[in-house]
Amino acid sequence: MLIALIGAALAGEGMWEPAQVAGLGPELAKAGFAGDAAQLARLDVAPLGAVVSLGGFCTASFVSPDGLLVTNHHCVTGFLQQASREGEDLIDAGFVAADRASERNVGPSGRVLVTTDVRDVTAEVVGKLPPKLPDAERSERIEDASKKLVAACEKPSGVRCRVASFYGGATYRLITQRELLDVRLVMAPPDSVGNYGDEIDNWHWPRHAGDFAFLRAYVGKDGAAAGFAADNVPYRPAQTLAVNPGGVSPGGFVMVAGYPGGTDRWRTAEEFEREATRALPRSILEQQFLLDTFADVAKADPAAGPILEPGRLSIANGMFNGKGTLEGFARSGVVAKAKARDAAIDAWVAADPSRSARYAPALTELRATLAAADARFERDVLLRYMAYASDLYGAATAIVTRAHERQKSDAKRRPGYQDRDEGRTRGSMASMQRGIQLEADRRAFAHALERLAALPDCPPELKTWLGLEAGGDVKVRVAEAVARLYANPPLAREADRVGYLDLPLAKLPKDDAFVSLALAMHPFIERERAEGRARDGALARLRPVYVEALRNALPARAYPDANGTLRVTFGTVQGYRPFDGALYTPQTTLEGLAAKAGAWPFDAAPAHLAAITAGKHGAYGDPTLGSVPVDFLSDLDITGGNSGSPTLDKDGRLVGLAFDGNYEGIASDWFFDANVARTIHVDVRYVLWYLDAVAQADHVLRELGQVPSL
Amino acid sequence: MLIALIGAALAGEGMWEPAQVAGLGPELAKAGFAGDAAQLARLDVAPLGAVVSLGGFCTASFVSPDGLLVTNHHCVTGFLQQASREGEDLIDAGFVAADRASERNVGPSGRVLVTTDVRDVTAEVVGKLPPKLPDAERSERIEDASKKLVAACEKPSGVRCRVASFYGGATYRLITQRELLDVRLVMAPPDSVGNYGDEIDNWHWPRHAGDFAFLRAYVGKDGAAAGFAADNVPYRPAQTLAVNPGGVSPGGFVMVAGYPGGTDRWRTAEEFEREATRALPRSILEQQFLLDTFADVAKADPAAGPILEPGRLSIANGMFNGKGTLEGFARSGVVAKAKARDAAIDAWVAADPSRSARYAPALTELRATLAAADARFERDVLLRYMAYASDLYGAATAIVTRAHERQKSDAKRRPGYQDRDEGRTRGSMASMQRGIQLEADRRAFAHALERLAALPDCPPELKTWLGLEAGGDVKVRVAEAVARLYANPPLAREADRVGYLDLPLAKLPKDDAFVSLALAMHPFIERERAEGRARDGALARLRPVYVEALRNALPARAYPDANGTLRVTFGTVQGYRPFDGALYTPQTTLEGLAAKAGAWPFDAAPAHLAAITAGKHGAYGDPTLGSVPVDFLSDLDITGGNSGSPTLDKDGRLVGLAFDGNYEGIASDWFFDANVARTIHVDVRYVLWYLDAVAQADHVLRELGQVPSL
Repeated sequence: MLIALIGAALAGEGMWEPAQVAGLGPELAKAGFAGDAAQLARLDVAPLGAVVSLGGFCTASFVSPDGLLVTNHHCVTGFLQQASREGEDLIDAGFVAADRASERNVGPSGRVLVTTDVRDVTAEVVGKLPPKLPDAERSERIEDASKKLVAACEKPSGVRCRVASFYGGATYRLITQRELLDVRLVMAPPDSVGNYGDEIDNWHWPRHAGDFAFLRAYVGKDGAAAGFAADNVPYRPAQTLAVNPGGVSPGGFVMVAGYPGGTDRWRTAEEFEREATRALPRSILEQQFLLDTFADVAKADPAAGPILEPGRLSIANGMFNGKGTLEGFARSGVVAKAKARDAAIDAWVAADPSRSARYAPALTELRATLAAADARFERDVLLRYMAYASDLYGAATAIVTRAHERQKSDAKRRPGYQDRDEGRTRGSMASMQRGIQLEADRRAFAHALERLAALPDCPPELKTWLGLEAGGDVKVRVAEAVARLYANPPLAREADRVGYLDLPLAKLPKDDAFVSLALAMHPFIERERAEGRARDGALARLRPVYVEALRNALPARAYPDANGTLRVTFGTVQGYRPFDGALYTPQTTLEGLAAKAGAWPFDAAPAHLAAITAGKHGAYGDPTLGSVPVDFLSDLDITGGNSGSPTLDKDGRLVGLAFDGNYEGIASDWFFDANVARTIHVDVRYVLWYLDAVAQADHVLRELGQVPSL
Repeated sequence: MLIALIGAALAGEGMWEPAQVAGLGPELAKAGFAGDAAQLARLDVAPLGAVVSLGGFCTASFVSPDGLLVTNHHCVTGFLQQASREGEDLIDAGFVAADRASERNVGPSGRVLVTTDVRDVTAEVVGKLPPKLPDAERSERIEDASKKLVAACEKPSGVRCRVASFYGGATYRLITQRELLDVRLVMAPPDSVGNYGDEIDNWHWPRHAGDFAFLRAYVGKDGAAAGFAADNVPYRPAQTLAVNPGGVSPGGFVMVAGYPGGTDRWRTAEEFEREATRALPRSILEQQFLLDTFADVAKADPAAGPILEPGRLSIANGMFNGKGTLEGFARSGVVAKAKARDAAIDAWVAADPSRSARYAPALTELRATLAAADARFERDVLLRYMAYASDLYGAATAIVTRAHERQKSDAKRRPGYQDRDEGRTRGSMASMQRGIQLEADRRAFAHALERLAALPDCPPELKTWLGLEAGGDVKVRVAEAVARLYANPPLAREADRVGYLDLPLAKLPKDDAFVSLALAMHPFIERERAEGRARDGALARLRPVYVEALRNALPARAYPDANGTLRVTFGTVQGYRPFDGALYTPQTTLEGLAAKAGAWPFDAAPAHLAAITAGKHGAYGDPTLGSVPVDFLSDLDITGGNSGSPTLDKDGRLVGLAFDGNYEGIASDWFFDANVARTIHVDVRYVLWYLDAVAQADHVLRELGQVPSL
């Protein structure tokens, strides 16, 4: 919420709800939008009507009346793996379906969610809750009310619903979405295009990735949503985006509509400080330990390297992100700014007795509640880390919790353990197999366990299980326990692990050391959960008061934190100053792509480079650049979940796809620094040029309303 | 000579002789010069009258009537070492003389050369040489004529002269210089300012080095040049530069006057190709071997590290330069361009019988002469490398050559072995001691010797000395020889090595293996030298014909290769595009300097950083930047020897000092790529701000005509 942090509205910042867009008319017009803001706010017409979620991790948009969708290449790599047949590697080779019959289903994880309605349900969720309700019960009643609203909203024909919380619980909205379940692969460039530059260029400008791909949504012959069936027919979306093959130029208006996953901009100063001084440095420390351990293990056992590689990449990426965020916090001085902001709120509250009466107790209680959670920081970190770093302990905990939950009726079970979650649970218990490396698992787990056991607030159940209830040498007992746990553990075998899912609680083998540990820890975890429920209830009560005080004390047009719901961000194509003596200009070119070519991850294919060298730009050239623009920068405000979002011009036409942020803006989940935070887009002209000059996918071009010219 | 290479005059390119400057009036005016070109060309008025050489490696300029000189910090590091007293490290700490009496003499290597006259002596040097003269004799007669001109020109009162060759021998000029011998240190910032960024920033933009220092020239009380004496008085230069404390802005006219050492722009296409395909790759290979060897040796023997460090830095810097030059050759396609240019010359020659008669035989002979030298490429490389890589072999060769030369009268001796060179020879034989590391010397020498001995054209003298004249195992013999050479070699001891200088040829100890090897090699080296003399004579005859053909075939305003004589280059303050998606802007700021601060080489002092944070810019701030500019870029054309050169504005006032080139322009000694080749300057405003705000050297500021304002 940097608007309040720095006291002025900033171009580019803001993940606006559709309902807010109607009120942004003057700003939109000033930024260069040529359309009608009220029209733009509507879900039932383009462009917003054409913008869909791929199920949380990515956004896509309909670009033809036959259900053609465009999104990022990095949003479909899992689909490409899934759709690869014996001897094929579609991630590496790319894919172009010659015709509809050749389009390949991407598997059960492929789904498309079209938002059809957003309704305020604050009154139904929290309107009738008595103020004095105990916090744990408040939390339960909010969950129950939400479940009821969802149950009434969802329909088996393919209507999915959820209740989303905005402004820390000040507002609740019921989101209605149409769900399509048969998603097929139409076209994806090779990894050397879609992921050009890989980790070297990731989060960085200048960028030359062709991060685009095409899917198609299918439905049953009756038009209803249906899982894959050979005779399904292409979905006919009511709304599609028009493509502007002329693209957009520096200084031009752009907007992005999509489904950003989550941000933390409405946090208190204490939460900013905690992130900067404790949470991030601590994560980086644990991540570094894991990376060092993986390296050690892989050095001693070369076969371990490939097994650990996906985990290594993910941890390294997380650590890179964490370090960048820390750097952003330091560079911006945002903690001091947040403190000054909260001090201004306190001063505003203190200046008037009626404000003091309304806000002061809640603000004090909010800080106390957050501080109380902080007191358990070390233990919470280690508990989370044990399940994160050790696949075996994570599996044991999940199996034991599930067995407990399954003793209740389905409706009473915790989310994630209901019948509807069974497929996902079994799938992940099986797929976990390819990542298990016992030596790394053991070292990481032992490292966490030893520190947890030595804590003054170590769970007593753990002490008992370790034989430390009457004292004793922690290191010795932990070493003995680790030796027991890792002596040929059944959980490391897929069949045993998945088999445990068929056993009721009483039948779980107590002589399996991991199961025995998870069973022992269960009462503690239940206590923790109850405490968490009380805390959640308190925060649901207190955060809205903080938000209200902030909005009244420092009035500014506000937008809620990202929460996976449809949002619009708008601004300008522009570069930035990455450091003294340099300016990043907002477009890259084919020639810049070719100049980077070489060894992986810059292994552009000869045909791709030859097409660049040929210098034929057809309808896709930018006369100012004298080339086809590849990627471009804007000051738009996106986050994870926005990947694949359509970038729209002043007329709402497609001019690109958002696919990444820059390094200098990596802390944007906490605050948006308009001077340096930038969104990276692939230019639609590069997409069209590639389809025409390299992929020769003329049928895709034509479906996009374009005439092949190369 | 890219003018001819790409067929158009380019802003910034050109190291113009003073005599040429008068004819550049229209170009100078167009570039923004406000003065009179004819006046600018004069050596007896400012600015050129104030621009001096520090003896080949650097340039400086007089900036006060009391002989104050400004140059680069990196030009005075040797002086700072020399002037440091017991317990002092003036390189690290910097130096500010509180008053004249505190100014410290920089030692015998400190000298200042003021160019007072440049006269064409082509007629005297080569005008009377018969066309059919044998080439070896031609070379000798050129040397003799030059010696005579110099002898007639020099005066013991401090007039030094040299004959310099231009355009490969088409023109000879006699340069007359006034030499001042008592140079003292006035002010130098600490290394953390002058060398901020060290090897990390070296050759790179953005840059934040305060690469400036102040010296003062002293003369005897009678005004004549004299070596250091306590009662010498400050020299009173007839000409000084005025300082423009307003500096210069992007787009502004700038020029640099100084003493560039050498360039290779008038080379033939074959020489360009040889450099790119043989000379540079081969140097890099040998440099890499030395670096690897040094690393190995230092790893096994930690004490060796510091001894090898200066050599390592110098080799690493040379290798970096070589690799950058190779990259520049490749990126620019300059070899192909040079071939096209020479083909155009050949076509122009062939198009007219009188041209064919005049040029064709010489062009053919020039290529044959260069090709003949190329045939011995491998042997020449190894011979040069043996003396370069082994201090002991280098010393032995120098001692033996000197003993031979000293059998002749002084006038007949080769340059470098005359009485006037004795001081330097003894000094370098002594100072060599601190760099000798026997194990590294042995490995490098053995590596070269083994390859040389295995060559088909291995010198027969070497074969005999190794006992290989009748065949035998090269590796075994070389290993035996190396064992002999490095069994407690006297040359590794300073006293023995310097002592050999007192022995006549006959008394040199033949049982010293290195001396014995150098004596054995002497006849071969003399033959090589005779061949070289013949080749030099041929090139002195042929290169001017090539130059004439080139200038007639592709007319363009031409400037000669740099040769250590005074030159002027002019152009504009401007940035460049280092790669796709980025622009380097031409100024850096105090805040950019502070943003880099941290561990060495970015160890800015607390007081320095505090002065930046204080934000007081006094008279030195740039209103557009809102800061004090630190360094800036221009498209000027400089090379080694230009370091410390004054950067002058449109009115000839001092606005900065040239101190480096950028990486993209690192191949500029061969061709100037105006798109990316840039000179890096320190801004005079940073110099003044530093003197005022950090060094508090108010007396230096006042001597520069400035009023302290901070």
